[in-house]
Amino acid sequence: MQQREANAATVERMFEAEPVLVDVARAGDVVPGMGERTILTSGPRTDASAYRGGQRRAVAFGAIHEGLAADEDDAWRQIEAGEILVEPCQDHGCIGSVAGIYTASMPVFVVKNRVHGNLAFCNLYEGASPRRLNYGVYDEEVAAGLRYLEDVLGPVLGAAVREAGEIPLKPIVRRALNMGDELHSRNTAASLLFGQAIFPALLELRERHQEAVESALGFLRENDYFFLRLSMAAAKATADASHGVEGSSVVSGMCVSGLEFAIRVSGLEDWIRGPLPISRAKLFDGFTEDDIEWLGGESCMTEAIGLGGFAQATAPSLQAYQGGTVDAMRETNLSMYEITVAENPTFKIPYLAYRGTPTGIDVFAVAETGILPTIDAGLAGKDGGQIGAGTLLAPLECFEAAAAAYLERYGARTTAAVDV
Amino acid sequence: MQQREANAATVERMFEAEPVLVDVARAGDVVPGMGERTILTSGPRTDASAYRGGQRRAVAFGAIHEGLAADEDDAWRQIEAGEILVEPCQDHGCIGSVAGIYTASMPVFVVKNRVHGNLAFCNLYEGASPRRLNYGVYDEEVAAGLRYLEDVLGPVLGAAVREAGEIPLKPIVRRALNMGDELHSRNTAASLLFGQAIFPALLELRERHQEAVESALGFLRENDYFFLRLSMAAAKATADASHGVEGSSVVSGMCVSGLEFAIRVSGLEDWIRGPLPISRAKLFDGFTEDDIEWLGGESCMTEAIGLGGFAQATAPSLQAYQGGTVDAMRETNLSMYEITVAENPTFKIPYLAYRGTPTGIDVFAVAETGILPTIDAGLAGKDGGQIGAGTLLAPLECFEAAAAAYLERYGARTTAAVDV
Repeated sequence: MQQREANAATVERMFEAEPVLVDVARAGDVVPGMGERTILTSGPRTDASAYRGGQRRAVAFGAIHEGLAADEDDAWRQIEAGEILVEPCQDHGCIGSVAGIYTASMPVFVVKNRVHGNLAFCNLYEGASPRRLNYGVYDEEVAAGLRYLEDVLGPVLGAAVREAGEIPLKPIVRRALNMGDELHSRNTAASLLFGQAIFPALLELRERHQEAVESALGFLRENDYFFLRLSMAAAKATADASHGVEGSSVVSGMCVSGLEFAIRVSGLEDWIRGPLPISRAKLFDGFTEDDIEWLGGESCMTEAIGLGGFAQATAPSLQAYQGGTVDAMRETNLSMYEITVAENPTFKIPYLAYRGTPTGIDVFAVAETGILPTIDAGLAGKDGGQIGAGTLLAPLECFEAAAAAYLERYGARTTAAVDV
Repeated sequence: MQQREANAATVERMFEAEPVLVDVARAGDVVPGMGERTILTSGPRTDASAYRGGQRRAVAFGAIHEGLAADEDDAWRQIEAGEILVEPCQDHGCIGSVAGIYTASMPVFVVKNRVHGNLAFCNLYEGASPRRLNYGVYDEEVAAGLRYLEDVLGPVLGAAVREAGEIPLKPIVRRALNMGDELHSRNTAASLLFGQAIFPALLELRERHQEAVESALGFLRENDYFFLRLSMAAAKATADASHGVEGSSVVSGMCVSGLEFAIRVSGLEDWIRGPLPISRAKLFDGFTEDDIEWLGGESCMTEAIGLGGFAQATAPSLQAYQGGTVDAMRETNLSMYEITVAENPTFKIPYLAYRGTPTGIDVFAVAETGILPTIDAGLAGKDGGQIGAGTLLAPLECFEAAAAAYLERYGARTTAAVDV
């Protein structure tokens, strides 16, 4: 296939995808290849011994929480002995928030792409505290929060989703874009809309599970970020469907570990690695750039399908959180059209006169213009916990390497990177 | 008091007001001075025989619906004989949507301003059909819809509000402004947030009133405009508290009947009348300007307290509905700062870098600049029903007359209209 057609076919798959929430279940029961002694973490496939700092600690915390290890040293002894398997989230259909730690007992959203049939999974938001396992923290409070997800929230949400049949996620995303969300750093409206969609089913369950239902309603009411994990799972289900189009130079995935950034290109096989992203962060009071710790993160999959930083102009309220201005956000959003091959027919930006979000990053467009994909993100600190938020820029090196790999594989480009 | 201080005191009352929903009850039981044979309608006090066209028909429809009259002629015979009393909504603490018909059996939101103690009332949204009594239509379908509000929705919401204790409205408005609502023509986020606030109480009622609760949940889920009546009642409670500041030239209310536009000024007593507003409408397909019929409307009270047209830049999604552009909406919103005396400390516009909404219209500023207050509104057709939406401009004559009345009352102005 010609590159132009291959790229169009790639985004067409993204546009056709219909991610629906079909269940909330125990990871060990539903995630492909996830054994009882498997731990997943963010980023491309990495030899476990290479993990450093906060991500290395977070992996060990996962093992401790799952009851596989007594302490960090024990966890790493077992990992290095091959008794505990550390695997990349995305190779198992999962998508990691920050460190992205998954263990077998954790509940996961099960999202099915109704059109292409593929499944994606994401574990649940731990709540509003800056101290969370996904931000590399583990103590009694974090453990109690995780047990709450396992014992109460996950099971009751699962029962409600099965009661509801399924919950289509794309209409929620579409509507939330009209209500100030960009579905990465802001999910307030989507969380409300999801609450509205699941309330009738929760109501049905109330007689049998009164306490759990009331607790779930409270959790939904208090957590404006709740939907992020569904946005991520929907993005994973959508991006995965776009992968594997012969001749395509469009990005079908992005992720970061504590060590490196990586992109996947639809027409190429392996993840292509580069340095860590460039941070344009606003740190919470009392923190400096030196406090930033890279734990990984795969929520940038939302950007890969035209949300997050690619829909920034929908979310002016992020200017305060991220430290930007409305005009800068608008300019940033507009610049993303220069590195993408299509405008989303479903996801629209009211502030840009309902222009579709820029979708489908062409590695050649990035490599040639030097315009880097903008990612809305939270930032972790060296002592764990969230210490700020802002935008990250995907590193140019990944796109240059991807362009080189494309030329090596296909011989030559057959079209201009982006129609002008 | 000096005019400057009086104006500041007027908006300060608006800013201090804390409207909370305390009940949903039968109008005849709670609205002051509302008898079983009283019908309320939008606009300033008018001799009943003067009502024309759609508003005249709507008043008669109210009488028929309430079982006071057999048909339109019978209704008007009784009205002219003084057997049925037609009164202005606002003199009874109520606020009318379009024709604003209230009868004794209708349920009303009871909103209390916790700070100043005053009450305001608004009846309930009839649903999404363009054929509604407030748009001057009455038939079996409209009647059935009204009976649903009286027999099912009103009572169950009332029980839920009493169960909840009270529901503060200002936090909902504040949050909704961050989510694309301007609280007049767009109330989608506020309706969701209100749903979230009342769900726990509805849940409590489910065992005793299963069918009504499920029906109420469905109604809330389906009607993005549901909150408008609460926004109006909150605006009425807020604006009423700002009325009566000696020396103030700030508008404390606006309304329109089928005959005329009128404003109330905090430091003056009577409503000041002028011609009908100027329409900048986008009509639904198949309608022309000749089809517009003025039935009245008091939802412009939202503009009087710094919402609606004064917060247009929060609601870019209205560009399609109203036929404007984002840039025009932003410019319109900015121009409202030129005719207002303060910026709202609670209601902020993310797209204007969280600038507070322009609040407190100074009649002198309007009269001298010729910048007319912008009102977001729906439009009714000659055959009844909604036929379009857009912005209306309040007529200059009202503000010129108000300025003259102010000078007559107070002798002279003591400050420039607006600080520059």
